[in-house]
Amino acid sequence: LVDTPRFHPDNIAPARPGLWRYRAFLPLADDAHLVSMGEGWTPLIASELAGRRCWLKLDHLFPTGSYKDRGATALISRVRELGIRRVVEDSSGNAGSAIAAYCALAGIRCRVLVPAHTSPAKLAQIRLYGADLQLVPGSREATAQAVLAEAQSTYYASHSWNPLFLQGTKTVAYEVCEQLGWRAPDALVLPVGNGTLLLGAAIGLGELLEAGVIAHLPRLVAVQAAACAPLARRFAGQAEENDAAPEPTLAEGIAIAEPVRGGQILEAVRRSGGTFLTVAEDELKQALHTAARRGLLVEPTAAAALAGLRQYLATSDDTCVVAVVTGHGLKAADKLLDLEELR
Amino acid sequence: LVDTPRFHPDNIAPARPGLWRYRAFLPLADDAHLVSMGEGWTPLIASELAGRRCWLKLDHLFPTGSYKDRGATALISRVRELGIRRVVEDSSGNAGSAIAAYCALAGIRCRVLVPAHTSPAKLAQIRLYGADLQLVPGSREATAQAVLAEAQSTYYASHSWNPLFLQGTKTVAYEVCEQLGWRAPDALVLPVGNGTLLLGAAIGLGELLEAGVIAHLPRLVAVQAAACAPLARRFAGQAEENDAAPEPTLAEGIAIAEPVRGGQILEAVRRSGGTFLTVAEDELKQALHTAARRGLLVEPTAAAALAGLRQYLATSDDTCVVAVVTGHGLKAADKLLDLEELR
Repeated sequence: LVDTPRFHPDNIAPARPGLWRYRAFLPLADDAHLVSMGEGWTPLIASELAGRRCWLKLDHLFPTGSYKDRGATALISRVRELGIRRVVEDSSGNAGSAIAAYCALAGIRCRVLVPAHTSPAKLAQIRLYGADLQLVPGSREATAQAVLAEAQSTYYASHSWNPLFLQGTKTVAYEVCEQLGWRAPDALVLPVGNGTLLLGAAIGLGELLEAGVIAHLPRLVAVQAAACAPLARRFAGQAEENDAAPEPTLAEGIAIAEPVRGGQILEAVRRSGGTFLTVAEDELKQALHTAARRGLLVEPTAAAALAGLRQYLATSDDTCVVAVVTGHGLKAADKLLDLEELR
Repeated sequence: LVDTPRFHPDNIAPARPGLWRYRAFLPLADDAHLVSMGEGWTPLIASELAGRRCWLKLDHLFPTGSYKDRGATALISRVRELGIRRVVEDSSGNAGSAIAAYCALAGIRCRVLVPAHTSPAKLAQIRLYGADLQLVPGSREATAQAVLAEAQSTYYASHSWNPLFLQGTKTVAYEVCEQLGWRAPDALVLPVGNGTLLLGAAIGLGELLEAGVIAHLPRLVAVQAAACAPLARRFAGQAEENDAAPEPTLAEGIAIAEPVRGGQILEAVRRSGGTFLTVAEDELKQALHTAARRGLLVEPTAAAALAGLRQYLATSDDTCVVAVVTGHGLKAADKLLDLEELR
């Protein structure tokens, strides 16, 4: 990685658009190859859930409709400055959309592999951005397997593996702490599949702590769908007891049976004093409706985090809890239309 | 309207989120009833079209996926401070989504009438926000007729009629000029149906000019779909010659055969030295693809403006031209999937 200075608020450039106010702390050689649409610096809004105050970070308001743009703008900027002209990526949908969009902006050829059951809106998105889209039958893991062969000969712009992606997603931590007046929340609630948001947030929070900008690490509260909760099971020490195959979940973005950085995710949650929570499909649907009834249209994966937020607030005394809204409901309009309550 | 001071950059509050940096110039009595999700202050990005430089204002990155949130946050804030508990609105989809979302956030009951042919994602949106959704058979005008009876007994939160809505949309002009370093662009290209964006922009630009913050008015370039171009025809003096009923257009957001403020729109365009342009369906589809190939997923109505931008750049010597991207492509994923090129 390109060297970056230790974090300091004086090195922020508030006149630069979006997350690029933190340009100084992003490991890119120069500004000549930045691939940006002015993304980031998303709203952090005060809200209320089950009678408790909380904060929501509106990371669904990115150009492609998910927080993955944080990682894509950093990673594809680096890809461009390295002079790479062609990449391949695998995704459950949102990361593929983000990589495809930023490759389109950069004029880089992009091939995206996704599970065949991915939401139609996400498929339309990826195709329209001009990526070569390949549907892979079977699970998310089948897609992850399929990409490895292609990654032998093509640059693998992986949101799961590539460290530049996490350098982009770390900005969510900068933003939340700055928006709280340079204070760390007591807890940060995130949906976790391959952990690209959680691991990025952990990097950013670690930098802020080391720089003395925040006084403590927030507890990282990692939310998985009960239907597919491999890390929550490992965290609880139940991995051996329950080898059942994952069941389908509306939260397609975190339906990851074998997260590639599982050990790192567990370690980051433990180090923060945080925990894992699992949410049932009914809780997730309820959270989706509750959010919409407050004007926030979120995709089911984001609703999982909000269902986790509700659980957490019910049992914790923390007074400053932030949940990240990761994806826009318009990405899954077909699923939203299918929900019972709409019939 | 509540009195507001003359515009002055010193009265901007840059620490406030989104468009609320311009709180001082929004005619609301106090801050106690603001209904906001931190919306606005959207990116203005440099782009290039047909070999010409231009700017794009990314107003599709609002919570409900369209610029209508500018108007809704202002209007519903006013509705709430007036103590109104129930509203009715009619819309081709996006304004209804915005009003429904902000009413949900404010705890105000909301009924929305839309044409039966509105995009499914927009219907899902409005329903999920908890609005009472009524589909009206026939044209947009049939919907406009149907709402009038209801507006006798319920507060009419109309984006077309209510001046508070335009007070919200005027912030697009503030933002563009501030993002250009307090300079007016030579031209501002906008899609026009009922003109809520154009009329708002004209108000904002007028205030900036009167305050001496900008030195001239930009030309307002109003874009309509050729299939439904009542104002473009009137502007060209052809209204009598062509009484043909409007034809279907992908640009559902501007398929307005009888704009309620048509005279005001024509006057604003004339006063600015601007013009009307019409775009064919093929141009619109082409513009949609061109935008996506640069990482911007826009809805067909927004693509109409980009098609107009291309026309304008081809014939004008203006060097600083801004087009507003009004709605997110994810709002019309069904239509995008239907485009020939995706089959």
